[in-house]
Amino acid sequence: MDDKKNTLLELLDTVKIVLVGTTHPGNIGAAARAMKNMGFRKLILVEPKEFPSDVATYRSKAAKDILEEAEIFNTLEQAVADCELVIGTSARDRKVPWPILNPKESAETVVKNLPQQKVALVFGREDRGLTNEELGLCNFHVHIPTDPDYSSLNLAQAVQILVYEIRVASLSDTEDKNYWDVELANTQQTEMLINHMDELMQQVEFYDVDNPRKLLLRVRRFFKRSNIDVMEANIFRGLFATIQKKLKQ
Amino acid sequence: MDDKKNTLLELLDTVKIVLVGTTHPGNIGAAARAMKNMGFRKLILVEPKEFPSDVATYRSKAAKDILEEAEIFNTLEQAVADCELVIGTSARDRKVPWPILNPKESAETVVKNLPQQKVALVFGREDRGLTNEELGLCNFHVHIPTDPDYSSLNLAQAVQILVYEIRVASLSDTEDKNYWDVELANTQQTEMLINHMDELMQQVEFYDVDNPRKLLLRVRRFFKRSNIDVMEANIFRGLFATIQKKLKQ
Repeated sequence: MDDKKNTLLELLDTVKIVLVGTTHPGNIGAAARAMKNMGFRKLILVEPKEFPSDVATYRSKAAKDILEEAEIFNTLEQAVADCELVIGTSARDRKVPWPILNPKESAETVVKNLPQQKVALVFGREDRGLTNEELGLCNFHVHIPTDPDYSSLNLAQAVQILVYEIRVASLSDTEDKNYWDVELANTQQTEMLINHMDELMQQVEFYDVDNPRKLLLRVRRFFKRSNIDVMEANIFRGLFATIQKKLKQ
Repeated sequence: MDDKKNTLLELLDTVKIVLVGTTHPGNIGAAARAMKNMGFRKLILVEPKEFPSDVATYRSKAAKDILEEAEIFNTLEQAVADCELVIGTSARDRKVPWPILNPKESAETVVKNLPQQKVALVFGREDRGLTNEELGLCNFHVHIPTDPDYSSLNLAQAVQILVYEIRVASLSDTEDKNYWDVELANTQQTEMLINHMDELMQQVEFYDVDNPRKLLLRVRRFFKRSNIDVMEANIFRGLFATIQKKLKQ
């Protein structure tokens, strides 16, 4: 299991992130940064307007190694020639509908096939996206859900969302959730805490005489649903005991 | 079903996106654009270094209305005083671990509670994130998985990922979760409860003199993550007040 997880994460750097006809070099830099954050490093540029570029380098921050290693092609067809799974971003409805995946589905498709296939994710021009011919080179299209009133997702943001989804999909769901510092209180410990608070409430005559049981029920529900841990329970019980001692004096 | 779905999407514009101590105005603009793409529009700035700013406006593209309506506060506590669910981004391991959600879990938590609660997502400084005090104001922390070798996620990219996840979650959630009988305590009410308990602890000299701050942090963490409702908070405060009265006698 752990082996599988490591292998998948290690394979992310084989996925080609292909930017087609990018106009603004800043977007190339920001895309490189987003890639590196998520463990990707194979950047492919098809007919970039301006590259290499200082603006791209500046926006890439510590991901400039990705820019340095970027490959440049004249056509998308050449860029993805060796890939078995090509997924292209598409904002528009096509006349001949292609299989459209949402980002999560596309990430699952990538992760499922990553060990066997060369994978490319293709992103179009800032203003016009991919041409019909370019979209026709893809096995699937991916559509990122946005607010229909303002759907012009920035190129680097689109890259960010897809590489993030792929990273998440490649992390197995056996992720370590065992990070809490203290054991949770068991039923017995929680009951003792509730009883202790009840005892104190009675001592100071706090009870709502009209409806005592509902009050206790609320206290009980609160502690039961709060997943209180052993140390937190001890803090309450320690405080209650200290108060009781002071009241006796 | 469709009504609920529409309502959830419509409620996204009530979620506060809170940027704390942002240094680069370009990040504020890019965050606004990411927000608008996903249907969010309530931007809150806590002590921004430079705002309003031409750079922010340029980077926001068609989202400059969000910048114009942005609210500015001096402290995070003021900014989220009226919120019942506050989720803060955190990259670091804490000594006293807070409940950590991944982006998907945090989106589900937001969507589940959005119809009843005022929600805030809090993002820290570019270089240092949120302070311990600021993280202590949050009910949950969210950690965005990144490559450990290069985890410096850009602020706007972090905003993008979380608002995207919330949009996706609000597209898919159709369950009716509106079953709780009492309003949840907001930040202000929870802070007053924590202060009241602290006051009482000091009065009875309960403090662990070796490590008082860690004890308080544990109390704070417990109440923050327990989603305490208004009536439960009132039970505790009523009990504390009654005890204080008895101690005076």
